[in-house]
Amino acid sequence: MRLALGVSYFGQAYDGWQSQLSGNTVQDKLEGALGQFSQQRVSTVCAGRTDAGVHGLMQVVHFDTELDRNLGSWVRGPNSYLPHDIAVQWARAVPDRFHSRASAIGRRYAYVLLESQIRPSVERGRVGWVFRPLDHDAMCAAAQLLLGEHDFTSFRASQCQAKSPVKTMRRIEITRRGAYWRFEFEANAFLHHMIRNLMGCLLVIGKGDRPVAWISEVLAARDRDAAAPTFSPDGLYFMGPCYEDHWDLPDRTAAYDWLP
Amino acid sequence: MRLALGVSYFGQAYDGWQSQLSGNTVQDKLEGALGQFSQQRVSTVCAGRTDAGVHGLMQVVHFDTELDRNLGSWVRGPNSYLPHDIAVQWARAVPDRFHSRASAIGRRYAYVLLESQIRPSVERGRVGWVFRPLDHDAMCAAAQLLLGEHDFTSFRASQCQAKSPVKTMRRIEITRRGAYWRFEFEANAFLHHMIRNLMGCLLVIGKGDRPVAWISEVLAARDRDAAAPTFSPDGLYFMGPCYEDHWDLPDRTAAYDWLP
Repeated sequence: MRLALGVSYFGQAYDGWQSQLSGNTVQDKLEGALGQFSQQRVSTVCAGRTDAGVHGLMQVVHFDTELDRNLGSWVRGPNSYLPHDIAVQWARAVPDRFHSRASAIGRRYAYVLLESQIRPSVERGRVGWVFRPLDHDAMCAAAQLLLGEHDFTSFRASQCQAKSPVKTMRRIEITRRGAYWRFEFEANAFLHHMIRNLMGCLLVIGKGDRPVAWISEVLAARDRDAAAPTFSPDGLYFMGPCYEDHWDLPDRTAAYDWLP
Repeated sequence: MRLALGVSYFGQAYDGWQSQLSGNTVQDKLEGALGQFSQQRVSTVCAGRTDAGVHGLMQVVHFDTELDRNLGSWVRGPNSYLPHDIAVQWARAVPDRFHSRASAIGRRYAYVLLESQIRPSVERGRVGWVFRPLDHDAMCAAAQLLLGEHDFTSFRASQCQAKSPVKTMRRIEITRRGAYWRFEFEANAFLHHMIRNLMGCLLVIGKGDRPVAWISEVLAARDRDAAAPTFSPDGLYFMGPCYEDHWDLPDRTAAYDWLP
């Protein structure tokens, strides 16, 4: 039987998603808890790896098991073994042809940013930070220039393992509530560090250090050195993958309403 | 010269506000940073002490100093010495007759609560948690019965040092955004553990375990044993004191918009 789980986590304490020898990754903790619950070795495949310090609102994983337990116990069981900052949100039985990564037709991320002369404190580790005022119109205009299919090589980390740097950006929404900005990105897929690199460039434009059209120059350069430095992981949240409706999987978790 | 500072902090790592031999309180960290910045011993008086695990959006302190530095440096200086989860938000010169506690004519607190079958993860340490659905109307009706001047002995911790258990509750607002409830309380002053004890009782009513009128019975009993157990500190935020307008002090910080 193939199962899919929705998982949320606060990433600050972990060395990212993907399993490492350190054992201190979200995948390691999840597979450890699934193993303790099922008394079997469980290997999971995720929809999208996240870097160290990046958070997950709805990571989705799949795995195969012979164990016949009701779906609710696949939520409550692992949660009793998981650290307090990781939780399984839902469990669903899926056909064997479902694959958490390959079946995903899109991914969504949110970046939350504090604009303040004072650094974060209450929300430390959960927001990026800029102390200079940002120009909403300029950032929205630059975001428009990123929509559609592009070669995103300029926003790609050197260690990125994706086969192609060409991705389709479907949506970028920039909103604010008081001092907190929220940038929401949706694409068919993202390259390694792509959002943090896009954020770096959007903020350069938002602060007025470069004109809106600069983003097109960076995109056209296909050169990582043309873009701004990689921005902090603190404010980055993987909202989760998008699947076709026929899989009948939840499309959000309660934590979506936690963000500003 | 007397100075007032607005201070925000995430309380999870600290043994509450008030200075202790452990040195691990918010007051200890603040006075340590003020001392390092000013090269003088600084003793602060706060508007309202918070318990271990309780957060501050705008604690206000005052202290006296002979040091003549511009106000901006009293923000930036201490912030460079403070731990990352504590920050001075503003500094103002105030008359010697201003007293952070005695001049306060009211206090505001917010309690943030996750209603979900799944325990907190992303927002761990920042929300209280109930897994049973809550009845908004019942809790609002019970809150109405708490407004005005009452003897709040039933909601007072045994170690409370307040001279009188009689306080005036001016406002209780209960709102929600998705799975997150926000309870906002304003009174002239609060007793030790009063909000966490009020929350315990409001949630008993919200879950339907007691009728609305039970809150009046608890209030009339003037007996701590009549009330529900003290609820978790995790979701409690001191929003700050209220002062008369003539003091011309900020009445909020950016972090107010961080809460749901």
